[in-house]
Amino acid sequence: MSLLVVGSLALDTVETPQGRADDVIGGAAMYFALAASFFAPVRMVGVVGADFPRSMLDELRRRGIDLQGVEELPGKTFRWTGRYHEDVNVRDTLHLDLGVFGDFRPKLPPSYRDSRFVFLANIDPVLQASVLDQLDAPGLVGCDTMNHWILESRPALEALLDKVGILVINDEEARLLSGERNVVRAAARILEMGPHAVLIKRGEYGVIQFAGDSIFAVPAFPLEEVTDPTGAGDCFAGGFMGELARSGDSSPAGLRRAIVYGSVMGSFVVEAFGPRRLLELTREDIDRRYRQFVSLTDVGGA
Amino acid sequence: MSLLVVGSLALDTVETPQGRADDVIGGAAMYFALAASFFAPVRMVGVVGADFPRSMLDELRRRGIDLQGVEELPGKTFRWTGRYHEDVNVRDTLHLDLGVFGDFRPKLPPSYRDSRFVFLANIDPVLQASVLDQLDAPGLVGCDTMNHWILESRPALEALLDKVGILVINDEEARLLSGERNVVRAAARILEMGPHAVLIKRGEYGVIQFAGDSIFAVPAFPLEEVTDPTGAGDCFAGGFMGELARSGDSSPAGLRRAIVYGSVMGSFVVEAFGPRRLLELTREDIDRRYRQFVSLTDVGGA
Repeated sequence: MSLLVVGSLALDTVETPQGRADDVIGGAAMYFALAASFFAPVRMVGVVGADFPRSMLDELRRRGIDLQGVEELPGKTFRWTGRYHEDVNVRDTLHLDLGVFGDFRPKLPPSYRDSRFVFLANIDPVLQASVLDQLDAPGLVGCDTMNHWILESRPALEALLDKVGILVINDEEARLLSGERNVVRAAARILEMGPHAVLIKRGEYGVIQFAGDSIFAVPAFPLEEVTDPTGAGDCFAGGFMGELARSGDSSPAGLRRAIVYGSVMGSFVVEAFGPRRLLELTREDIDRRYRQFVSLTDVGGA
Repeated sequence: MSLLVVGSLALDTVETPQGRADDVIGGAAMYFALAASFFAPVRMVGVVGADFPRSMLDELRRRGIDLQGVEELPGKTFRWTGRYHEDVNVRDTLHLDLGVFGDFRPKLPPSYRDSRFVFLANIDPVLQASVLDQLDAPGLVGCDTMNHWILESRPALEALLDKVGILVINDEEARLLSGERNVVRAAARILEMGPHAVLIKRGEYGVIQFAGDSIFAVPAFPLEEVTDPTGAGDCFAGGFMGELARSGDSSPAGLRRAIVYGSVMGSFVVEAFGPRRLLELTREDIDRRYRQFVSLTDVGGA
């Protein structure tokens, strides 16, 4: 089943303790789509400027990513420059230029309207809601957000959450959204806002899902080196939603498998700068790491 | 099989955001022994002053804990007063009085010398080594330490680590001991120092074990409220070593089961001040939470 994603497409310049990369393609929707494309056909909604490499758009198309919903405008692509600390959970934004993304209003091509699986990457909740309004009958809706919208657009965000099935956020966002420091209480408060599941990303400690009374925790894959953390959360969401769109199975077991696939994709992307590692990845690599993940936490069959 | 533990016995005064408890029994060896006693007979080596409640010593004996190795001296028991922050991973020591523990020199009664399972809780590595010297043929030796010894007694600690099978420390200690910030590299360096397994405790994120090429990660049990974190790491070690002493199975599968039992014991103790929760616990409670732990991370059978 096709999976629709709306969000940012960007050109990133990133410094980490391991080095530096200039003008690599990035953005939440980009990372999401690349990760998800290993699992299901992806439909993308976004905007790029004249400086966005056309070869990269061709590469996305080759991967089965539908770009009918991506506007190509004169002007500059969204640019982000950031520096990660020795503790890779901490980063500084050195420069930000919204470019054509500043006036982004998602417009869905008619061929996208029947999408059943939808992911609203981190953008203004008013725009996220406008995507849902353009869909005939969205089935499973996943959503991300960030501190800025929680603080500045809470009414719009709360209205949106009522229409969201699965919220995917990090631990800091979960605390801010819920007003609770404890993760169990934070999740309970968020589930009262509408979503039937909340996935809380905890960086190097993995992901924890709360869905009804069920809790599922996956550690992060232990890596000797994190070269560039950019996109880890978006690739997690891409692998997660991609596997759900592929299997059509959102039972508790299906959700758990999808969370592990998401964790696999998040663990790959950080091994190199930008999306480089994703671009060389094979389905076999993914399945091998999936098995490693299962054995990492397996008590019974160890 | 009997399990020998050497370490502190204390009277603690603890403040947390949930309240305060005065003069509750504590100390690493105490928490360890209480947790381990659900699994195997425990032999304790330590020292208490005249102010240590005799009723509590009787309670320990009732639980199958052998106190022949616990000296009762005139003078004061080791006392610690601490305050935990809203973020329970952070605590301040407000007051510390070593009392009779200041001159503690572990002396093993002859009946302890055949102990095969041994846990050296956090004390001076010179004293930890002296315990091993008094044993006929220690089999599996577990060991804890802390920043103070890593910084001030590194030669003695390194000499000890060569005789230790399993090192159980927290993430900060692992970084300091190894000089590596990344957990995978830190563990690799520590394994080079002697232990064949290292268990790194990560507070609210659980535990990760490195043993040879095998990595095993368990999240912490998600609790709505942590009332008093004191003793969590020691109860983890107690459940872990206790289960190993019970089963005699230190295969990879046996180690994994023991790590989950350790996590179970750590998750119970924090539910109330001091050792209160441990004292009311049943074996049935333990096995129920063990099953919850398994389901918390189970992909296959979900």
